[in-house]
Amino acid sequence: MSLIVLKFGGTSVDSCDKIIKVAKLVKKYYDQKNKVIVVSSAMSGATDDLIKKSKKISNTFEKSEQDVLVSTGEQITCSLLAGALIELGLKSRSWLSWQLPILTEGSHTSSRIKKINIKEVLSFLKKGGIPVITGFQGVSIDRRVTTIGRGGSDASAIAIAKFFGADSCVIYTDVDGVYTTDPKVNSKAKRIDKISYEEMLEMASLGTKVMQSSSIQDAMLNNIKIDIRSTFSKNLGTKITDEIKVISKKAITGISYTKDIAKITVVGVKDKPGVASEMFKPLKEINLDMIVQSSSVDEGKTDITFTIKKEDIKKAIILLKKNKKISYEKIIQNDKVSKISVVGAGMITQPGVAQKFFNALAKKKINIMVISTSEIKISVLIDQQHTNKAVKVLHKEFDLE
Amino acid sequence: MSLIVLKFGGTSVDSCDKIIKVAKLVKKYYDQKNKVIVVSSAMSGATDDLIKKSKKISNTFEKSEQDVLVSTGEQITCSLLAGALIELGLKSRSWLSWQLPILTEGSHTSSRIKKINIKEVLSFLKKGGIPVITGFQGVSIDRRVTTIGRGGSDASAIAIAKFFGADSCVIYTDVDGVYTTDPKVNSKAKRIDKISYEEMLEMASLGTKVMQSSSIQDAMLNNIKIDIRSTFSKNLGTKITDEIKVISKKAITGISYTKDIAKITVVGVKDKPGVASEMFKPLKEINLDMIVQSSSVDEGKTDITFTIKKEDIKKAIILLKKNKKISYEKIIQNDKVSKISVVGAGMITQPGVAQKFFNALAKKKINIMVISTSEIKISVLIDQQHTNKAVKVLHKEFDLE
Repeated sequence: MSLIVLKFGGTSVDSCDKIIKVAKLVKKYYDQKNKVIVVSSAMSGATDDLIKKSKKISNTFEKSEQDVLVSTGEQITCSLLAGALIELGLKSRSWLSWQLPILTEGSHTSSRIKKINIKEVLSFLKKGGIPVITGFQGVSIDRRVTTIGRGGSDASAIAIAKFFGADSCVIYTDVDGVYTTDPKVNSKAKRIDKISYEEMLEMASLGTKVMQSSSIQDAMLNNIKIDIRSTFSKNLGTKITDEIKVISKKAITGISYTKDIAKITVVGVKDKPGVASEMFKPLKEINLDMIVQSSSVDEGKTDITFTIKKEDIKKAIILLKKNKKISYEKIIQNDKVSKISVVGAGMITQPGVAQKFFNALAKKKINIMVISTSEIKISVLIDQQHTNKAVKVLHKEFDLE
Repeated sequence: MSLIVLKFGGTSVDSCDKIIKVAKLVKKYYDQKNKVIVVSSAMSGATDDLIKKSKKISNTFEKSEQDVLVSTGEQITCSLLAGALIELGLKSRSWLSWQLPILTEGSHTSSRIKKINIKEVLSFLKKGGIPVITGFQGVSIDRRVTTIGRGGSDASAIAIAKFFGADSCVIYTDVDGVYTTDPKVNSKAKRIDKISYEEMLEMASLGTKVMQSSSIQDAMLNNIKIDIRSTFSKNLGTKITDEIKVISKKAITGISYTKDIAKITVVGVKDKPGVASEMFKPLKEINLDMIVQSSSVDEGKTDITFTIKKEDIKKAIILLKKNKKISYEKIIQNDKVSKISVVGAGMITQPGVAQKFFNALAKKKINIMVISTSEIKISVLIDQQHTNKAVKVLHKEFDLE
C-alpha cells in the first residue's frame, strides 16, 4: 500500500463541477488501495481577487492581515473538496494549516514550512480517511496565519510528502507535463516522459512555469518522486526522477525561454576585489538573474552585465547611479531582451552542444549578446523579437521533434 | 474609559469603500478615549453564495465542512477591516475565532458559544490596540471550525461583550433602529428611541428583523446595554435598556407582523393529558410558532391550532397523518395567514389594549382567526391579504404616528 500526495492547482478546482471531477479522480487512487493525502490550491484567480481587494484598502496593506485574507482561498476549495469526497461515500475531512499545524518561519507572505505535525492526519489515514489539506499556507509559532512565498501549494505538497514519508507526489495542473519547449511558441514541442531533478530545476528557473524551482529543489533534496499530470486529460504526464541514465541519451531535454527581461551593463568598473559586492549591495531588493563579468581587457577595468525583470529597470538604474562607492565609465541598458536556454543532463557527457547552439542561432542571423553556462544548461541573451525564431531553430537542431 | 463592542452587519462591510468608512467610524470611538472591540459579519450575500456552492456539490453537504466553508466570509471582512484601521494609523489586528479561542458546543452550523478566552485580546486592548474579531463562528473542543446557529454575529457580539465585561454593545446595521412598525408597510412608522429587553424580545420574535431574539435574550440575562444604529446615517438609533419607566407611558411600543406562515388546526382530538405531547413529538424538527388550544366544548374533545413556516406545511401534514398515537376528526390547513402583534410593556398597567386592538380590526372588517397573548404582547392571525391594512390601522389606533 502506497502513500501518495495528490496536489491540485487552481485551474483544477475553479468550479464546483471541476471539484466533483477532482473528487472522482482522488477516489480512483483510493480504490486502487492507496493511502491518499490531498493538497489543494485556491480557485484560479481567487488569490489575485483578494489581493486586489486589499489594495483598495491600502497600497501598503499589512502583510499579516493579507495572509489572513488570502488563506481563505484554500479554505474554500478544501472544504468543498472534502464535501465532494464525502458525497462519493468516502471518509474525508479538511485540515486547515493551523489544525495540523503546519508550522512556518520567516516573514508574512513569504514564510517557509519548518515542521508539520502529522499525528492527527496520520491517525485519520489509518482509519481509511482521505485528508484534504490547505496548500500555500501555514501558521507561525505565535499562532498567526501565514502564507508560503515561493512555490506556494507545490511547496506545501512536497513538504507534506516529506513529513509523511509519502512514496510519491502527483502535481495535478492544467498542462499534461513538461514539454521540450513552450507548445505555444513551437507546435512541434513534445511532452517529456522523464526528466531529472537537475534538468527540471534548470527548466523551471528558466521559465517553464509548470513548477517553481524551490519546490523541485526541496523534492530533490528529499528524494521525493514527482509526477506532473493534467487533471482533465488521460495523458501520462512527466515524471521527475533521479534515474539519470534513462534520459541522458539525448544531449538536450528541452528549450526554455524568458521574455520581458532587461539587461544592464556597467562599463569600465575597476577590476579589483569587492567591486561586484559593492555594486549589487543596494540592489538587494531586486531579483537579479544572470550576472556575467568578462575578463579585464583594459588597464584593470572590466564590464559587468546583469539581467533583471523589465519592470525593475528604472529602480535599478536609479540605485546604481546613487551608489557612490563604485566608479564606472557608463551604463548601457536594454529592456528588449530574451533569454534562451538549452537544458539537458546529457550535455555533461556529449561535447559540442555549445557549438551546435551558437551555430544554429548564427544560421538564422540571430546575434548573441551575452552567454552564460552551467553544467547542464547554456543560456544566451538575444533581441526579444527573435525569441520564437530562436526557440524553433534550436528545437529542431537538437532533435526534439 | 469605557469598553465598547462595535458589531458591523453584512451590509455595512460589503465593499472595500464601506470597510474604509467603517474603519473611520471605529476611529471616532477610539479617539473619544474608548477601548474598542470590533466584531464583523461576512459581506452581505457572501455566506449565501458559499452555501450555494456547497449545494452544487451535495444536497446533504457535510455540516462540519460547511462551517469551514462559510467561516471564510468573516475572515475576509475582519482582515480587510483590520488592514483599514492600520491604514488610518491605528494599532489593529484580526482575531479568528480559533485564535482566541471562542469555544462553542453543540452541532455544526448551529453551535452555541460556551466560553471565550479573553487573555490575548485583553492584553492587546491594554496596549491601545483595536482587535477585530470574526462574528458568527467559533471552534469546538476538538479544534474544528463551527458556526453559530441562531443570532449569528449578533450573538457573537453579545457573548464577547459579556466575557470582556464591556460597558455596551453597539449593533451597526442598515436600518437606524427599531421602528413602531415596518416602514415599508407604513410610511408613518417612527423610530423608537428606547425599548425594554422584553419588548424588543417580543418585537424580534414577531418579525422585526433587526436582531434575533436569542441575542436579545442573552443581552437581557447579562444586562448588556445595546444600541442599534445605522452605519451610514447619523440618526440616534434605538437603545435597548432595562429602564422600563422611561418607555411605559405609552401602552404600545410597536406593531409587528409576519407573513408567509401557515396555520394547521387538528379538530376533535381527545381532551386528556398527553395529547399535545403525542401530537407534537413527531414534529420536533419543525419550528412551531403559536400553539393555541381552545377549551373543550364537545364531550371531552378539543381543537389544537398551531402555526409554522409556510414552507413546512407539507411535511407537517404528512407527519401528523402518519402519527397513529393520536385520533382526531379532521385537519384544517391554511397557508395564507399573517400574524399581527402589538407589543408594549405599558399594556401591563393599562387595561383595554386588547379591546382596542380587536375593535380596530373589526372596523376594517378584518376577521381574526386565532388569538394568543402574553404579558406584553397580543397576537392574532388574519388573512394574509389584509396584513398591510391591519398594520396601518393599528399603528394609528395606538398613537404611534
